[in-house]
Amino acid sequence: MNIIIIEQNEITNDVIRLSDRRADHVRDVLHSSPGDTLKIGILNGPTGVGTVESINHQYIQLRLAQLKETPPARQIDLILALPRPIMLKRILTQAVTLGVDRIYLINANRVEKSFFQTALLAKENYLPLLIQGLEQAMITRMPEVSIHKRFRPFIEDILPIVSKNNSIKITAHPEARLKLHEVIPSRSEGNILLAVGPEGGWNDFEIEKFKQAGFQIFTMGPRILKVDTAIIALLSQIDIISDLRMKQTTLD
Amino acid sequence: MNIIIIEQNEITNDVIRLSDRRADHVRDVLHSSPGDTLKIGILNGPTGVGTVESINHQYIQLRLAQLKETPPARQIDLILALPRPIMLKRILTQAVTLGVDRIYLINANRVEKSFFQTALLAKENYLPLLIQGLEQAMITRMPEVSIHKRFRPFIEDILPIVSKNNSIKITAHPEARLKLHEVIPSRSEGNILLAVGPEGGWNDFEIEKFKQAGFQIFTMGPRILKVDTAIIALLSQIDIISDLRMKQTTLD
Repeated sequence: MNIIIIEQNEITNDVIRLSDRRADHVRDVLHSSPGDTLKIGILNGPTGVGTVESINHQYIQLRLAQLKETPPARQIDLILALPRPIMLKRILTQAVTLGVDRIYLINANRVEKSFFQTALLAKENYLPLLIQGLEQAMITRMPEVSIHKRFRPFIEDILPIVSKNNSIKITAHPEARLKLHEVIPSRSEGNILLAVGPEGGWNDFEIEKFKQAGFQIFTMGPRILKVDTAIIALLSQIDIISDLRMKQTTLD
Repeated sequence: MNIIIIEQNEITNDVIRLSDRRADHVRDVLHSSPGDTLKIGILNGPTGVGTVESINHQYIQLRLAQLKETPPARQIDLILALPRPIMLKRILTQAVTLGVDRIYLINANRVEKSFFQTALLAKENYLPLLIQGLEQAMITRMPEVSIHKRFRPFIEDILPIVSKNNSIKITAHPEARLKLHEVIPSRSEGNILLAVGPEGGWNDFEIEKFKQAGFQIFTMGPRILKVDTAIIALLSQIDIISDLRMKQTTLD
Protein backbone atom coordinates (compact mmCIF):
# COMPACT_ATOMS: atom_id res chain seq x y z
CA MET A 1 0.00 0.00 0.00
CA ASN A 2 1.96 2.99 -1.30
CA ILE A 3 -1.03 5.32 -1.01
CA ILE A 4 -4.21 5.14 1.08
CA ILE A 5 -7.26 5.26 -1.13
CA ILE A 6 -10.33 6.89 0.43
CA GLU A 7 -13.74 7.76 -0.94
CA GLN A 8 -15.10 11.30 -1.13
CA ASN A 9 -18.07 10.43 1.07
CA GLU A 10 -15.75 9.35 3.90
CA ILE A 11 -14.47 12.93 4.28
CA THR A 12 -16.06 15.50 6.58
CA ASN A 13 -14.48 18.95 6.71
CA ASP A 14 -11.12 17.64 5.50
CA VAL A 15 -11.08 15.00 8.21
CA ILE A 16 -11.39 11.26 7.79
CA ARG A 17 -11.58 8.42 10.30
CA LEU A 18 -10.41 4.99 9.21
CA SER A 19 -11.20 1.80 11.09
CA ASP A 20 -10.75 -0.96 8.52
CA ARG A 21 -7.71 -2.62 6.93
CA ARG A 22 -6.36 0.81 6.03
CA ALA A 23 -6.22 1.69 9.74
CA ASP A 24 -4.49 -1.63 10.41
CA HIS A 25 -1.93 -0.79 7.76
CA VAL A 26 -1.19 2.65 9.24
CA ARG A 27 -0.94 1.22 12.74
CA ASP A 28 0.78 -2.13 12.18
CA VAL A 29 2.84 -1.71 9.02
CA LEU A 30 3.68 1.99 8.90
CA HIS A 31 3.74 2.36 12.71
CA SER A 32 2.60 5.96 12.30
CA SER A 33 2.27 8.41 15.20
CA PRO A 34 0.27 11.64 15.55
CA GLY A 35 1.86 14.33 13.39
CA ASP A 36 3.10 11.90 10.72
CA THR A 37 1.96 12.48 7.17
CA LEU A 38 0.75 9.81 4.76
CA LYS A 39 0.06 9.79 1.05
CA ILE A 40 -3.67 9.88 0.39
CA GLY A 41 -5.66 9.46 -2.81
CA ILE A 42 -9.34 10.20 -3.21
CA LEU A 43 -10.97 7.57 -5.41
CA ASN A 44 -11.36 8.98 -8.93
CA GLY A 45 -10.04 12.29 -7.59
CA PRO A 46 -6.95 14.15 -6.42
CA THR A 47 -4.03 12.94 -4.33
CA GLY A 48 -2.65 14.70 -1.28
CA VAL A 49 -1.31 14.15 2.20
CA GLY A 50 -3.06 13.19 5.39
CA THR A 51 -1.69 14.20 8.76
CA VAL A 52 -2.34 11.74 11.57
CA GLU A 53 -4.36 13.61 14.24
CA SER A 54 -5.13 10.73 16.51
CA ILE A 55 -4.52 7.02 16.57
CA ASN A 56 -6.04 4.41 18.84
CA HIS A 57 -7.37 0.86 18.76
CA GLN A 58 -10.73 1.89 17.31
CA TYR A 59 -9.76 4.31 14.59
CA ILE A 60 -7.21 6.59 13.01
CA GLN A 61 -8.05 10.20 12.30
CA LEU A 62 -6.38 12.03 9.43
CA ARG A 63 -6.60 15.64 8.29
CA LEU A 64 -6.30 16.06 4.52
CA ALA A 65 -4.28 18.77 2.80
CA GLN A 66 -2.40 19.63 -0.39
CA LEU A 67 -4.94 17.94 -2.62
CA LYS A 68 -4.03 18.17 -6.27
CA GLU A 69 -5.38 16.58 -9.40
CA THR A 70 -3.02 14.43 -11.46
CA PRO A 71 -3.04 15.37 -15.13
CA PRO A 72 -4.83 12.59 -17.01
CA ALA A 73 -2.59 10.31 -19.06
CA ARG A 74 -3.62 8.99 -22.45
CA GLN A 75 -6.55 6.67 -21.92
CA ILE A 76 -5.87 3.00 -22.57
CA ASP A 77 -8.75 0.54 -22.60
CA LEU A 78 -8.33 -3.20 -22.65
CA ILE A 79 -10.44 -5.89 -24.24
CA LEU A 80 -9.40 -9.21 -22.80
CA ALA A 81 -10.55 -12.69 -23.75
CA LEU A 82 -11.39 -14.05 -20.30
CA PRO A 83 -8.32 -15.91 -18.97
CA ARG A 84 -8.34 -18.64 -16.36
CA PRO A 85 -9.26 -17.24 -12.92
CA ILE A 86 -5.83 -17.59 -11.32
CA MET A 87 -4.34 -15.56 -14.14
CA LEU A 88 -7.20 -13.06 -14.24
CA LYS A 89 -6.61 -12.29 -10.59
CA ARG A 90 -3.02 -11.24 -11.22
CA ILE A 91 -3.84 -9.48 -14.48
CA LEU A 92 -6.53 -7.27 -12.94
CA THR A 93 -4.17 -5.85 -10.32
CA GLN A 94 -1.25 -5.51 -12.72
CA ALA A 95 -3.32 -3.86 -15.46
CA VAL A 96 -4.51 -1.28 -12.95
CA THR A 97 -0.95 -0.48 -11.86
CA LEU A 98 -0.13 0.11 -15.53
CA GLY A 99 -2.95 2.63 -15.83
CA VAL A 100 -5.73 0.87 -17.72
CA ASP A 101 -9.03 2.78 -17.74
CA ARG A 102 -11.62 0.29 -18.88
CA ILE A 103 -11.46 -3.48 -18.95
CA TYR A 104 -13.85 -5.48 -21.09
CA LEU A 105 -13.71 -9.19 -20.27
CA ILE A 106 -15.14 -11.02 -23.24
CA ASN A 107 -15.76 -14.47 -24.60
CA ALA A 108 -13.86 -16.04 -27.49
CA ASN A 109 -13.72 -19.42 -29.13
CA ARG A 110 -10.63 -20.49 -27.18
CA VAL A 111 -11.96 -19.30 -23.81
CA GLU A 112 -13.01 -22.24 -21.67
CA LYS A 113 -16.69 -21.92 -20.81
CA SER A 114 -15.99 -22.74 -17.16
CA PHE A 115 -13.95 -19.54 -16.78
CA PHE A 116 -17.20 -17.55 -16.73
CA GLN A 117 -18.34 -19.49 -13.66
CA THR A 118 -15.64 -18.09 -11.40
CA ALA A 119 -16.69 -16.13 -8.32
CA LEU A 120 -13.98 -13.64 -9.26
CA LEU A 121 -16.36 -12.08 -11.78
CA ALA A 122 -18.62 -10.83 -8.97
CA LYS A 123 -17.92 -7.15 -8.35
CA GLU A 124 -17.35 -7.61 -4.62
CA ASN A 125 -14.59 -10.09 -5.45
CA TYR A 126 -12.70 -8.24 -8.16
CA LEU A 127 -13.02 -4.75 -6.67
CA PRO A 128 -10.40 -5.40 -3.94
CA LEU A 129 -7.95 -6.48 -6.68
CA LEU A 130 -8.46 -3.20 -8.52
CA ILE A 131 -7.99 -1.24 -5.31
CA GLN A 132 -4.75 -3.16 -4.63
CA GLY A 133 -3.56 -1.98 -8.03
CA LEU A 134 -4.38 1.65 -7.20
CA GLU A 135 -2.67 1.37 -3.81
CA GLN A 136 0.41 -0.17 -5.41
CA ALA A 137 0.81 2.32 -8.24
CA MET A 138 -0.35 5.41 -6.30
CA ILE A 139 -3.13 6.27 -8.67
CA THR A 140 -6.76 7.08 -7.89
CA ARG A 141 -8.67 6.41 -11.09
CA MET A 142 -10.70 3.23 -10.71
CA PRO A 143 -11.07 1.38 -14.00
CA GLU A 144 -14.48 0.22 -15.12
CA VAL A 145 -14.80 -3.53 -15.58
CA SER A 146 -17.55 -5.11 -17.65
CA ILE A 147 -18.19 -8.74 -18.54
CA HIS A 148 -19.51 -9.91 -21.89
CA LYS A 149 -20.43 -13.56 -22.22
CA ARG A 150 -21.14 -13.48 -25.93
CA PHE A 151 -18.51 -12.43 -28.46
CA ARG A 152 -20.66 -11.39 -31.36
CA PRO A 153 -23.17 -9.14 -29.55
CA PHE A 154 -20.20 -7.49 -27.84
CA ILE A 155 -18.29 -6.75 -30.99
CA GLU A 156 -21.28 -5.88 -33.17
CA ASP A 157 -23.57 -4.01 -30.80
CA ILE A 158 -21.66 -2.85 -27.73
CA LEU A 159 -18.21 -2.08 -29.09
CA PRO A 160 -19.31 0.54 -31.65
CA ILE A 161 -20.96 2.52 -28.86
CA VAL A 162 -18.30 2.26 -26.16
CA SER A 163 -15.31 2.73 -28.47
CA LYS A 164 -16.36 6.06 -29.98
CA ASN A 165 -13.47 7.85 -28.30
CA ASN A 166 -10.90 5.16 -29.06
CA SER A 167 -9.22 6.48 -32.17
CA ILE A 168 -6.59 3.73 -32.09
CA LYS A 169 -7.88 0.16 -31.99
CA ILE A 170 -5.32 -2.62 -32.13
CA THR A 171 -4.89 -6.31 -31.47
CA ALA A 172 -1.92 -8.66 -31.71
CA HIS A 173 -2.04 -11.40 -34.33
CA PRO A 174 0.77 -13.70 -35.48
CA GLU A 175 0.01 -13.08 -39.16
CA ALA A 176 0.36 -9.31 -38.90
CA ARG A 177 3.31 -7.58 -40.56
CA LEU A 178 3.26 -4.25 -38.77
CA LYS A 179 4.80 -3.87 -35.35
CA LEU A 180 3.17 -2.18 -32.39
CA HIS A 181 4.85 1.18 -32.94
CA GLU A 182 3.74 1.12 -36.56
CA VAL A 183 0.04 0.90 -35.69
CA ILE A 184 0.17 3.83 -33.29
CA PRO A 185 0.20 6.85 -35.57
CA SER A 186 2.64 9.68 -35.12
CA ARG A 187 1.32 12.69 -33.23
CA SER A 188 -1.76 10.69 -32.35
CA GLU A 189 -3.38 11.69 -29.11
CA GLY A 190 -6.48 9.54 -29.21
CA ASN A 191 -7.42 6.91 -26.69
CA ILE A 192 -6.14 3.44 -27.34
CA LEU A 193 -8.21 0.28 -27.28
CA LEU A 194 -6.01 -2.81 -27.03
CA ALA A 195 -7.55 -6.26 -27.49
CA VAL A 196 -5.67 -9.28 -26.14
CA GLY A 197 -6.79 -12.74 -27.18
CA PRO A 198 -6.89 -16.02 -25.27
CA GLU A 199 -4.01 -18.51 -25.02
CA GLY A 200 -3.84 -19.83 -28.58
CA GLY A 201 -5.10 -16.54 -30.02
CA TRP A 202 -8.27 -15.26 -31.64
CA ASN A 203 -9.67 -17.52 -34.33
CA ASP A 204 -10.13 -16.42 -37.95
CA PHE A 205 -13.74 -15.35 -37.46
CA GLU A 206 -12.83 -13.24 -34.44
CA ILE A 207 -9.91 -11.53 -36.18
CA GLU A 208 -12.18 -10.77 -39.12
CA LYS A 209 -14.73 -9.24 -36.77
CA PHE A 210 -12.08 -7.09 -35.11
CA LYS A 211 -10.91 -5.87 -38.50
CA GLN A 212 -14.48 -5.01 -39.47
CA ALA A 213 -14.74 -3.07 -36.21
CA GLY A 214 -11.78 -0.93 -37.26
CA PHE A 215 -8.96 -2.76 -35.50
CA GLN A 216 -5.45 -2.89 -36.92
CA ILE A 217 -3.45 -6.01 -36.28
CA PHE A 218 0.20 -6.00 -35.23
CA THR A 219 2.84 -8.65 -34.58
CA MET A 220 4.63 -9.18 -31.28
CA GLY A 221 7.53 -10.89 -33.06
CA PRO A 222 8.53 -14.54 -33.05
CA ARG A 223 8.30 -15.11 -29.30
CA ILE A 224 5.02 -16.41 -27.93
CA LEU A 225 4.16 -14.92 -24.55
CA LYS A 226 1.61 -16.02 -22.01
CA VAL A 227 -1.36 -13.71 -21.74
CA ASP A 228 -0.32 -12.22 -18.39
CA THR A 229 3.19 -11.46 -19.65
CA ALA A 230 1.85 -10.10 -22.93
CA ILE A 231 -0.51 -7.65 -21.25
CA ILE A 232 2.23 -6.09 -19.13
CA ALA A 233 4.59 -6.04 -22.11
CA LEU A 234 2.06 -4.35 -24.41
CA LEU A 235 0.79 -1.78 -21.91
CA SER A 236 4.40 -0.81 -21.06
CA GLN A 237 5.34 -0.57 -24.69
CA ILE A 238 2.29 1.59 -25.48
CA ASP A 239 3.32 3.80 -22.59
CA ILE A 240 6.80 4.40 -23.95
CA ILE A 241 5.63 4.78 -27.54
CA SER A 242 3.08 7.39 -26.42
CA ASP A 243 5.79 9.16 -24.51
CA LEU A 244 8.10 9.25 -27.52
CA ARG A 245 5.26 10.27 -29.84
CA MET A 246 4.69 13.41 -27.85
CA LYS A 247 8.25 14.52 -28.47
CA GLN A 248 8.57 14.19 -32.20
CA THR A 249 6.75 14.10 -35.46
CA THR A 250 7.56 10.64 -36.60
CA LEU A 251 9.29 7.51 -35.48
CA ASP A 252 8.69 5.43 -38.53
CA MET B 1 5.14 -26.04 -24.86
CA ASN B 2 5.30 -24.20 -28.18
CA ILE B 3 8.59 -25.83 -29.12
CA ILE B 4 10.27 -29.05 -27.98
CA ILE B 5 13.72 -28.32 -26.58
CA ILE B 6 16.28 -31.09 -27.04
CA GLU B 7 19.98 -31.31 -26.30
CA GLN B 8 22.64 -31.88 -28.93
CA ASN B 9 23.82 -35.08 -27.26
CA GLU B 10 20.35 -36.62 -27.56
CA ILE B 11 20.63 -36.61 -31.36
CA THR B 12 22.09 -39.51 -33.38
CA ASN B 13 22.20 -39.14 -37.16
CA ASP B 14 19.39 -36.57 -37.16
CA VAL B 15 17.15 -38.89 -35.13
CA ILE B 16 16.03 -38.43 -31.55
CA ARG B 17 14.00 -40.65 -29.21
CA LEU B 18 12.04 -39.00 -26.43
CA SER B 19 10.62 -40.87 -23.45
CA ASP B 20 10.11 -38.21 -20.80
CA ARG B 21 7.55 -35.41 -20.30
CA ARG B 22 8.27 -34.23 -23.85
CA ALA B 23 7.04 -37.59 -25.17
CA ASP B 24 3.96 -37.29 -22.95
CA HIS B 25 3.28 -33.86 -24.38
CA VAL B 26 3.53 -35.07 -28.00
CA ARG B 27 1.32 -38.07 -27.25
CA ASP B 28 -1.25 -36.67 -24.83
CA VAL B 29 -1.49 -32.96 -25.62
CA LEU B 30 -0.59 -32.71 -29.28
CA HIS B 31 -2.01 -36.15 -30.16
CA SER B 32 0.59 -36.46 -32.91
CA SER B 33 0.72 -39.35 -35.39
CA PRO B 34 3.56 -40.67 -37.56
CA GLY B 35 4.24 -38.18 -40.35
CA ASP B 36 3.27 -35.11 -38.28
CA THR B 37 5.86 -32.39 -37.89
CA LEU B 38 6.70 -30.58 -34.67
CA LYS B 39 8.74 -27.50 -33.88
CA ILE B 40 12.09 -28.46 -32.40
CA GLY B 41 14.81 -26.34 -30.81
CA ILE B 42 18.30 -27.53 -29.97
CA LEU B 43 19.42 -26.09 -26.65
CA ASN B 44 21.74 -23.12 -27.33
CA GLY B 45 21.50 -23.98 -31.01
CA PRO B 46 19.27 -23.84 -34.08
CA THR B 47 15.55 -24.47 -34.42
CA GLY B 48 13.94 -26.78 -36.96
CA VAL B 49 11.22 -29.33 -37.47
CA GLY B 50 10.97 -32.91 -36.30
CA THR B 51 8.92 -35.45 -38.22
CA VAL B 52 7.32 -38.14 -36.09
CA GLU B 53 8.69 -41.48 -37.32
CA SER B 54 7.21 -43.74 -34.70
CA ILE B 55 5.14 -43.33 -31.58
CA ASN B 56 4.40 -45.89 -28.89
CA HIS B 57 4.04 -46.18 -25.13
CA GLN B 58 7.79 -46.31 -24.55
CA TYR B 59 9.09 -43.58 -26.77
CA ILE B 60 8.58 -41.21 -29.65
CA GLN B 61 11.05 -41.10 -32.51
CA LEU B 62 11.60 -37.89 -34.46
CA ARG B 63 13.72 -37.14 -37.50
CA LEU B 64 15.15 -33.62 -37.50
CA ALA B 65 15.31 -31.36 -40.54
CA GLN B 66 15.42 -27.74 -41.66
CA LEU B 67 17.68 -26.68 -38.83
CA LYS B 68 18.49 -23.00 -38.93
CA GLU B 69 20.18 -20.61 -36.54
CA THR B 70 18.16 -17.67 -35.27
CA PRO B 71 20.00 -14.38 -35.66
CA PRO B 72 21.07 -13.28 -32.19
CA ALA B 73 19.11 -10.38 -30.72
CA ARG B 74 20.76 -7.66 -28.67
CA GLN B 75 22.00 -9.24 -25.47
CA ILE B 76 20.19 -8.17 -22.32
CA ASP B 77 21.52 -9.21 -18.94
CA LEU B 78 19.65 -8.79 -15.69
CA ILE B 79 20.91 -8.08 -12.19
CA LEU B 80 18.08 -8.77 -9.79
CA ALA B 81 17.95 -8.20 -6.05
CA LEU B 82 16.71 -11.61 -4.92
CA PRO B 83 12.91 -11.44 -4.61
CA ARG B 84 10.75 -13.69 -2.46
CA PRO B 85 10.71 -17.26 -3.82
CA ILE B 86 7.13 -17.28 -5.09
CA MET B 87 7.88 -14.19 -7.14
CA LEU B 88 11.30 -15.43 -8.27
CA LYS B 89 9.67 -18.54 -9.68
CA ARG B 90 7.43 -16.53 -11.96
CA ILE B 91 10.13 -14.00 -12.82
CA LEU B 92 12.63 -16.64 -13.97
CA THR B 93 10.25 -18.12 -16.53
CA GLN B 94 8.96 -14.74 -17.69
CA ALA B 95 12.42 -13.19 -18.01
CA VAL B 96 13.47 -16.11 -20.21
CA THR B 97 10.45 -15.65 -22.48
CA LEU B 98 11.48 -12.02 -22.87
CA GLY B 99 14.96 -13.06 -24.01
CA VAL B 100 17.26 -12.40 -21.06
CA ASP B 101 20.76 -13.85 -21.47
CA ARG B 102 22.30 -13.76 -18.02
CA ILE B 103 20.63 -13.43 -14.67
CA TYR B 104 22.61 -12.36 -11.60
CA LEU B 105 20.61 -12.87 -8.41
CA ILE B 106 22.21 -10.66 -5.80
CA ASN B 107 21.82 -9.49 -2.24
CA ALA B 108 20.77 -6.00 -1.20
CA ASN B 109 19.90 -4.28 2.03
CA ARG B 110 16.16 -4.70 1.50
CA VAL B 111 16.40 -8.38 0.52
CA GLU B 112 15.17 -10.59 3.34
CA LYS B 113 17.96 -12.93 4.41
CA SER B 114 15.61 -15.90 4.39
CA PHE B 115 15.13 -15.58 0.63
CA PHE B 116 18.59 -17.07 0.11
CA GLN B 117 17.49 -20.24 1.93
CA THR B 118 14.96 -21.25 -0.72
CA ALA B 119 15.41 -24.58 -2.47
CA LEU B 120 14.61 -22.74 -5.69
CA LEU B 121 18.21 -21.53 -5.83
CA ALA B 122 19.46 -25.06 -6.44
CA LYS B 123 20.18 -25.54 -10.12
CA GLU B 124 18.02 -28.68 -10.42
CA ASN B 125 15.07 -26.64 -9.17
CA TYR B 126 15.38 -23.49 -11.25
CA LEU B 127 16.48 -25.17 -14.48
CA PRO B 128 12.97 -26.51 -15.29
CA LEU B 129 11.63 -22.96 -14.93
CA LEU B 130 14.15 -21.67 -17.46
CA ILE B 131 13.27 -24.48 -19.85
CA GLN B 132 9.57 -23.65 -19.49
CA GLY B 133 10.46 -20.14 -20.59
CA LEU B 134 12.30 -21.42 -23.67
CA GLU B 135 9.43 -23.77 -24.53
CA GLN B 136 6.90 -20.96 -24.14
CA ALA B 137 8.75 -18.35 -26.21
CA MET B 138 10.18 -20.76 -28.79
CA ILE B 139 13.77 -19.81 -28.16
CA THR B 140 16.76 -22.07 -27.55
CA ARG B 141 19.31 -19.92 -25.78
CA MET B 142 19.52 -20.95 -22.13
CA PRO B 143 20.36 -18.01 -19.88
CA GLU B 144 23.11 -18.36 -17.30
CA VAL B 145 22.01 -17.87 -13.73
CA SER B 146 24.41 -17.04 -10.91
CA ILE B 147 23.79 -16.32 -7.25
CA HIS B 148 25.71 -13.75 -5.23
CA LYS B 149 25.07 -13.64 -1.53
CA ARG B 150 27.16 -10.57 -0.83
CA PHE B 151 26.43 -7.25 -2.49
CA ARG B 152 29.81 -5.57 -2.21
CA PRO B 153 32.06 -8.36 -3.50
CA PHE B 154 29.65 -8.78 -6.40
CA ILE B 155 29.65 -5.15 -7.41
CA GLU B 156 33.32 -4.45 -6.74
CA ASP B 157 35.01 -7.67 -7.83
CA ILE B 158 32.73 -9.73 -10.05
CA LEU B 159 30.76 -7.09 -11.95
CA PRO B 160 33.77 -5.36 -13.55
CA ILE B 161 34.83 -8.67 -15.06
CA VAL B 162 31.47 -10.01 -16.23
CA SER B 163 30.14 -6.71 -17.56
CA LYS B 164 32.97 -5.92 -19.96
CA ASN B 165 30.67 -6.37 -22.95
CA ASN B 166 27.77 -4.47 -21.44
CA SER B 167 28.19 -1.02 -22.92
CA ILE B 168 24.87 0.14 -21.48
CA LYS B 169 24.39 -0.30 -17.73
CA ILE B 170 21.21 1.03 -16.21
CA THR B 171 19.06 0.82 -13.10
CA ALA B 172 15.74 2.39 -12.13
CA HIS B 173 15.76 4.86 -9.27
CA PRO B 174 12.95 7.19 -8.16
CA GLU B 175 15.28 10.19 -7.94
CA ALA B 176 16.46 9.89 -11.53
CA ARG B 177 15.43 12.53 -14.06
CA LEU B 178 16.14 10.71 -17.30
CA LYS B 179 13.67 8.23 -18.70
CA LEU B 180 14.54 4.77 -19.95
CA HIS B 181 14.78 5.78 -23.60
CA GLU B 182 17.10 8.62 -22.65
CA VAL B 183 19.69 6.32 -21.09
CA ILE B 184 19.84 4.02 -24.11
CA PRO B 185 21.97 5.95 -26.59
CA SER B 186 20.96 6.39 -30.20
CA ARG B 187 22.52 3.97 -32.65
CA SER B 188 23.89 2.01 -29.73
CA GLU B 189 24.32 -1.64 -30.38
CA GLY B 190 26.02 -2.72 -27.19
CA ASN B 191 24.71 -5.26 -24.74
CA ILE B 192 22.48 -3.98 -21.99
CA LEU B 193 22.84 -4.70 -18.31
CA LEU B 194 19.66 -3.87 -16.40
CA ALA B 195 19.67 -3.90 -12.61
CA VAL B 196 16.35 -4.19 -10.78
CA GLY B 197 16.24 -3.52 -7.04
CA PRO B 198 14.20 -5.14 -4.28
CA GLU B 199 10.71 -4.03 -3.21
CA GLY B 200 11.44 -0.65 -1.61
CA GLY B 201 14.39 -0.04 -3.92
CA TRP B 202 18.17 0.06 -3.61
CA ASN B 203 19.44 2.04 -0.64
CA ASP B 204 21.72 5.08 -0.99
CA PHE B 205 24.92 3.06 -0.60
CA GLU B 206 23.85 0.59 -3.27
CA ILE B 207 22.86 3.29 -5.76
CA GLU B 208 26.21 4.98 -5.15
CA LYS B 209 27.99 1.70 -5.83
CA PHE B 210 26.05 1.18 -9.06
CA LYS B 211 26.94 4.69 -10.19
CA GLN B 212 30.61 4.03 -9.43
CA ALA B 213 30.33 0.87 -11.51
CA GLY B 214 29.22 2.94 -14.51
CA PHE B 215 25.45 2.61 -14.18
CA GLN B 216 23.10 5.35 -15.29
CA ILE B 217 19.90 5.76 -13.34
CA PHE B 218 16.51 6.32 -14.94
CA THR B 219 13.00 6.97 -13.66
CA MET B 220 10.02 4.73 -14.31
CA GLY B 221 7.63 7.63 -13.71
CA PRO B 222 5.29 8.26 -10.78
CA ARG B 223 3.74 4.78 -10.64
CA ILE B 224 5.34 2.26 -8.32
CA LEU B 225 5.32 -1.26 -9.76
CA LYS B 226 5.95 -4.57 -8.08
CA VAL B 227 9.23 -6.16 -9.05
CA ASP B 228 7.66 -8.86 -11.23
CA THR B 229 5.61 -6.30 -13.15
CA ALA B 230 8.58 -3.94 -13.43
CA ILE B 231 10.86 -6.58 -14.95
CA ILE B 232 8.42 -7.46 -17.72
CA ALA B 233 7.70 -3.77 -18.33
CA LEU B 234 11.38 -2.82 -18.56
CA LEU B 235 12.49 -5.76 -20.71
CA SER B 236 9.62 -5.10 -23.12
CA GLN B 237 10.39 -1.41 -23.26
CA ILE B 238 14.08 -2.07 -23.91
CA ASP B 239 13.00 -4.39 -26.70
CA ILE B 240 10.93 -1.75 -28.45
CA ILE B 241 13.49 1.00 -27.88
CA SER B 242 16.20 -1.22 -29.39
CA ASP B 243 13.94 -1.93 -32.31
CA LEU B 244 13.29 1.75 -32.93
CA ARG B 245 16.96 2.62 -32.48
CA MET B 246 17.90 0.40 -35.39
CA LYS B 247 15.67 2.41 -37.70
CA GLN B 248 16.72 5.95 -37.04
CA THR B 249 19.47 8.19 -35.84
CA THR B 250 17.87 9.69 -32.81
CA LEU B 251 14.72 9.55 -30.79
CA ASP B 252 15.61 12.15 -28.25
